[in-house]
Amino acid sequence: MTESSKPERHKKRMERHKEIVDSKIAQATTERGVVVVHTGNGKGKSTAGFGMAARALGHGMQVGIVQFIKGSFSTGEEAFFRRFPEVSYHVMGQGYTWDTQDLEKDLATAAKGWAQAKAFLEDEKVDLVVLDELNIALKYNYIAMQDVLDALANRPAMQHVVITGRGARDELIAAADTVSEHKEIKHAFHAGVIAQKGVEL
Amino acid sequence: MTESSKPERHKKRMERHKEIVDSKIAQATTERGVVVVHTGNGKGKSTAGFGMAARALGHGMQVGIVQFIKGSFSTGEEAFFRRFPEVSYHVMGQGYTWDTQDLEKDLATAAKGWAQAKAFLEDEKVDLVVLDELNIALKYNYIAMQDVLDALANRPAMQHVVITGRGARDELIAAADTVSEHKEIKHAFHAGVIAQKGVEL
Repeated sequence: MTESSKPERHKKRMERHKEIVDSKIAQATTERGVVVVHTGNGKGKSTAGFGMAARALGHGMQVGIVQFIKGSFSTGEEAFFRRFPEVSYHVMGQGYTWDTQDLEKDLATAAKGWAQAKAFLEDEKVDLVVLDELNIALKYNYIAMQDVLDALANRPAMQHVVITGRGARDELIAAADTVSEHKEIKHAFHAGVIAQKGVEL
Repeated sequence: MTESSKPERHKKRMERHKEIVDSKIAQATTERGVVVVHTGNGKGKSTAGFGMAARALGHGMQVGIVQFIKGSFSTGEEAFFRRFPEVSYHVMGQGYTWDTQDLEKDLATAAKGWAQAKAFLEDEKVDLVVLDELNIALKYNYIAMQDVLDALANRPAMQHVVITGRGARDELIAAADTVSEHKEIKHAFHAGVIAQKGVEL
């Protein structure tokens, strides 16, 4: 029995891998708008949403963004994306719910945010809709789940939607095409590192 | 005993929440460059890395990007980020390893990518370094883990680094400040949806 060399073994293993990947790609033939959900307690949910916006802009697509929670965070994205005429950017929240401490005000803000989101979800000129932190508004029942499910179901066939925020509800996960749960393994914040420009801000 | 109203209960609950959040924020006072790792099998790792680049650009920061694996994917980001003079964008890979099926070629490509990454990690003018899919190169031992750990440890004090790719090695997780594991809950691909512009491309 001849022992095959390392490069040969590598080539064989990679050939098998390529066959599997190619066969999966061959099976995926549908083109349609997808709903992507980024949830979990780890870093990178909003950032992934904004990364999708950047990717879409790379293709000259029109992007609608609603930020449901305006934090002290993420001023970087806002400054950045407002530069682009292809982006319609709306910040609806007035700070985290534990900052406002006012249920009526939070409800009114959420309703206004949802009205803008719904307008995007009915507009076929909008190729990608980013609903940042919508999950938080759904978790607190500030926005009715059924309204969101209906708007997603009735949106333009080719429109993509990305929804972010921890605690995504089961109904939304069921309705989504792609769901990624971001688990926090560790976070600099717990080691005493403040939120910084380019990382969290 | 008086039953407090819903808005009052909400206010009390949110006040307690705010106290906890504020006290955590008060404890986080260090400003320094951080290493962020996005790993796991779920969607949004590279996208989160590119989202951080967008955020950094919002603050006028200089960004160095090395893509260690050039796929058929992510042409959107490349087209987008190449527009910005603040971004130095390098695509080093020549396709997935199972596409090239050539170990020597992959090793040479990885070495070239790492040389560029190292140059960024030694340059204090670069505020954010994005090392996209570096984890794959480390997993296949195309790049020596110790070289990466040394370069991270010796980089400029305020420089941020984001490293993406599934299968992050334990040594890298130990060295990182923030680690998020993206778990795939579901993916449109498995339902026969092809990779599309603005989503994966």
